[in-house]
Amino acid sequence: MRTLPPELDLPTATDVERAAGRIRPFARRTPVLTATSLDALFGVRLFFKCENFQRVGAFKFRGACNAVQSLSEADAARGVATHSSGNHGAALALAARLRGVPCTVVVPRSAPEVKRAAVAAYGADVVLCEPTLEARETTLAKAVAESGQVVVHPYDDARVIAGQGTAALELVHEVPDLDILLVPIGGGGLASGTALAVRGASPGTSPGTSPGTRVVAVEPLGADDAYRSFRSGELLPSIAPDTIADGLLTSLGVRNFELVRRHVDDIVRVSEEAIARAMRLVWERMKIVVEPSAAVPLAALLDGALDGLAGQRVGIVLSGGNVDLDRLPW
Amino acid sequence: MRTLPPELDLPTATDVERAAGRIRPFARRTPVLTATSLDALFGVRLFFKCENFQRVGAFKFRGACNAVQSLSEADAARGVATHSSGNHGAALALAARLRGVPCTVVVPRSAPEVKRAAVAAYGADVVLCEPTLEARETTLAKAVAESGQVVVHPYDDARVIAGQGTAALELVHEVPDLDILLVPIGGGGLASGTALAVRGASPGTSPGTSPGTRVVAVEPLGADDAYRSFRSGELLPSIAPDTIADGLLTSLGVRNFELVRRHVDDIVRVSEEAIARAMRLVWERMKIVVEPSAAVPLAALLDGALDGLAGQRVGIVLSGGNVDLDRLPW
Repeated sequence: MRTLPPELDLPTATDVERAAGRIRPFARRTPVLTATSLDALFGVRLFFKCENFQRVGAFKFRGACNAVQSLSEADAARGVATHSSGNHGAALALAARLRGVPCTVVVPRSAPEVKRAAVAAYGADVVLCEPTLEARETTLAKAVAESGQVVVHPYDDARVIAGQGTAALELVHEVPDLDILLVPIGGGGLASGTALAVRGASPGTSPGTSPGTRVVAVEPLGADDAYRSFRSGELLPSIAPDTIADGLLTSLGVRNFELVRRHVDDIVRVSEEAIARAMRLVWERMKIVVEPSAAVPLAALLDGALDGLAGQRVGIVLSGGNVDLDRLPW
Repeated sequence: MRTLPPELDLPTATDVERAAGRIRPFARRTPVLTATSLDALFGVRLFFKCENFQRVGAFKFRGACNAVQSLSEADAARGVATHSSGNHGAALALAARLRGVPCTVVVPRSAPEVKRAAVAAYGADVVLCEPTLEARETTLAKAVAESGQVVVHPYDDARVIAGQGTAALELVHEVPDLDILLVPIGGGGLASGTALAVRGASPGTSPGTSPGTRVVAVEPLGADDAYRSFRSGELLPSIAPDTIADGLLTSLGVRNFELVRRHVDDIVRVSEEAIARAMRLVWERMKIVVEPSAAVPLAALLDGALDGLAGQRVGIVLSGGNVDLDRLPW
């Protein structure tokens, strides 16, 4: 049996419940939407947890907020830092502002100006770097060596994972008898947090929830490192990932892999065509804006990647709605 | 003083309340959404009544449903009919199906195949005609002469107007102290119904509502027949209207004009550029899909078409979300 490095702190279902209480004053309790016409199309009952309506437009705010709110007063006073070209940077910036502490976000020069502006608008210090992973990490290391700020990783962090799990926790409390819950998987923050939340929700401790809900993560075929890691039992890196689901390009994290191995029932893969079609279906039938990554779970139904769903109650976490309206995949 | 033709039945605020009870088992009670970042942008408090989430994707279902549910058993048995290339056809088809009665929709050959298919999918008989108003009307007249079906006009109909007013009625019950309520105006079904609903909602009869809410209709500059009619006091036709707000191309109806004159406080006009920008703002900040017509009220804030709004509580009816995702105005 593999053993974990001793320093690898893994969050528990209890941590997800604590995170829910911690972020409640700051995060939105997003709605669960249903869609009659999609139910008819797929022959299932769908329940969509709409994290596109979350603050900063994505579930990422939950993890960032839990991390910032978990800090001691002394740590918080120094502030937080991360590198990000996407939703995590904006999420951490807002979470820091809400606690009134400094925040530094290292952003590659190649990131769209609009994303940089969003991070700055939340009051964070934006530090530009060259668009390589090495430049990001050395720039971040240099910044925190000077400031003493606490680095909050976008997904390989126990506090972040616990925070991301609160979306699924709200969903299973609201819709207690799901047969299956589908989440997209990239770095694995949402998938591992979701699995913890569902495993922790048992009839004895959390009224109305079912212990029988399967958790299945869905990944683009063009960025399937989590699928390959899950199947092989070894954490394999993402090599030249290519997908329109730009939130899922990152490699699975170490903590995330451990939790996914233990608590996720399966990982399935979907085609780019199905992702684009699923995204459009959600826009057309539900009249809501979701980003490509958020459409990945529904793409599994279009691709027939899951067996035995007929008539089942299917939960889906719609992870976010931050999409460039000038570059839609159709 | 002008007198109305004796046969012109005008609905009252009481009719709106009755319509609300009549359609309750069939229509969705759509959510009222707020948007912190838009509030900050405009310096007001915005409350959006989301009829893009209504059945068939637009408020039109309310009026069609009220009309169909108002029919006597004998009339209903013969069915209903209309001509429409847009949301009203689908709305009437669904309303008829829900009562289990026949429905005929005359559709111009020029209408997109997808719209024709939507009407047919709700179980209506689709009759194609040449794409002229004359052809539509003669084809409809011929169809109902044979079938005896009841014609339900898309907006110049007391039952339809009362039904459309139920969206605003729900909004003012949920958010009682609005200073102003903005609605788009085309044929005038929504605007006249909204004005009736707001005027009828007084503290004595409808708890929690305010008699002090101004109702302002907003119209594209490129299709401003309602504005010109309101200003001149004479019902003027729409001549060569041109706007991306394709739901507002129609001319104001006779009943609608009478109600707008009596109960609407003002009509203001907005530019095409502001409509497109407002639509994009709603998509980006609220993560919901709205059609160009639905963005027309918010465009009035972008264009500065309204004075004295600072700090006010502003209601907006987002009329629908049926938009061609292949032809977005940016």
